[in-house]
Amino acid sequence: MEAAATEYGMERPRMKKSPCLYLMPSTMSDGTVENVIPSTNILLASRIRYFIVENVRTARRFLRRCDPSIAIDDITFSVLNRHTSPEEIASMLDPMSAGHDMAIISEAGCPAIADPGADVVAIAQRKGYRVEPLVGPSSILMSLMASGFNGQSFAFLGYLPIDSRERVARLKEMERRIQNERQTQIFIETPYRNNRIIAELTKALPGRMLLCVASDITGERQSIITRPLSWWATAKYNYDKIPTIFLLYS
Amino acid sequence: MEAAATEYGMERPRMKKSPCLYLMPSTMSDGTVENVIPSTNILLASRIRYFIVENVRTARRFLRRCDPSIAIDDITFSVLNRHTSPEEIASMLDPMSAGHDMAIISEAGCPAIADPGADVVAIAQRKGYRVEPLVGPSSILMSLMASGFNGQSFAFLGYLPIDSRERVARLKEMERRIQNERQTQIFIETPYRNNRIIAELTKALPGRMLLCVASDITGERQSIITRPLSWWATAKYNYDKIPTIFLLYS
Repeated sequence: MEAAATEYGMERPRMKKSPCLYLMPSTMSDGTVENVIPSTNILLASRIRYFIVENVRTARRFLRRCDPSIAIDDITFSVLNRHTSPEEIASMLDPMSAGHDMAIISEAGCPAIADPGADVVAIAQRKGYRVEPLVGPSSILMSLMASGFNGQSFAFLGYLPIDSRERVARLKEMERRIQNERQTQIFIETPYRNNRIIAELTKALPGRMLLCVASDITGERQSIITRPLSWWATAKYNYDKIPTIFLLYS
Repeated sequence: MEAAATEYGMERPRMKKSPCLYLMPSTMSDGTVENVIPSTNILLASRIRYFIVENVRTARRFLRRCDPSIAIDDITFSVLNRHTSPEEIASMLDPMSAGHDMAIISEAGCPAIADPGADVVAIAQRKGYRVEPLVGPSSILMSLMASGFNGQSFAFLGYLPIDSRERVARLKEMERRIQNERQTQIFIETPYRNNRIIAELTKALPGRMLLCVASDITGERQSIITRPLSWWATAKYNYDKIPTIFLLYS
């Protein structure tokens, strides 16, 4: 236990220790910030001076939409994306050792869900820092709520495999988990392949299985439609290049 | 296709049709509403006159916290819980056929996620009504963000089985999915058994596996701690009767 106690800084689970690493969700569309972000987050965004972001330009834009009078030039941004090395990630939390609060903002929606923020959070946890998630939009959770599918058991699988044999195997496994575990299966696809994946699903899976297509969540053209695959097989639709999430259940 | 087209009211996926069924998240703790609910939801809560709720008393209280001047007596509440019959559920959406917007509010957090709202949403989808999810707090998503675990693949499993043999089998299956699929496993326990399940996990699973215990999310005593099971085996903690969610990963 000695080793673990040393590696994991905190002695007791409940000790609250400043500073704090906030997980700060951002908007997923161009709609008004107040539609999807609680006012407390907006106040916090104006106060924090050290941010970890995927893209500085969009992060700046989000912060200005939260507070048009924000002093952007006083803010330090560290960029975290799939090119960031583990050493760079480890040093990103340095401002916290000097006592500063920090926040992670993702490109869209909730940080560390389907994006690289989780590595930084894991380090903050190991160092024993306080980590606080804030409320914001998540296409996974919002589509699940509106699908009518089982919300007591569900899985998000990220992207389907590209290789067609692996892809069919994955779909069959999802079918098994729907049948045997009553587990809603949620996944995404590269947006230019949205129409193709719907056609593929109608061929690979039983027609009575239900598909929910949730598109442009929180946006102007939001549409969340649950129908049997037999309906989708002959329906007219066009989700090309629109951010869309897919849910299966029966 | 004829049958499906008749049963599923809408002809085209993108047609927007009033009225709308809103999924309206509620607070999970006694903190201020503005901390976790966007201001747009609060405005909407003051406007809607037909609600489907788990408990009328807590729903009234939530609506008053959103808008102290709300005219509660003008609001119609339908109660949806596990005792509600399928026939009652089907008739709950009658106000929508008269053109009224409706909203589902759960006891705490997001409706239709780990609560009975999903049945009503499924009917609304079948009737071709517009369904719109609103942003709000979810202990599942917030704990996942702050855990540092894989957010590109995760599963929420609800409650663990009570029978001890089934329980051990479930834990072993979770261990397999963490190893083979890199899938974060998330579950809950009856709050008076929180301490016991942590002890159980430290015995049933490898000591190097990581457990995140996320407790009183959004509340005064919020604490989200990720440590190896070997650390939890000797740690001092007391989560008795505090709403808590558990996440496993390695």
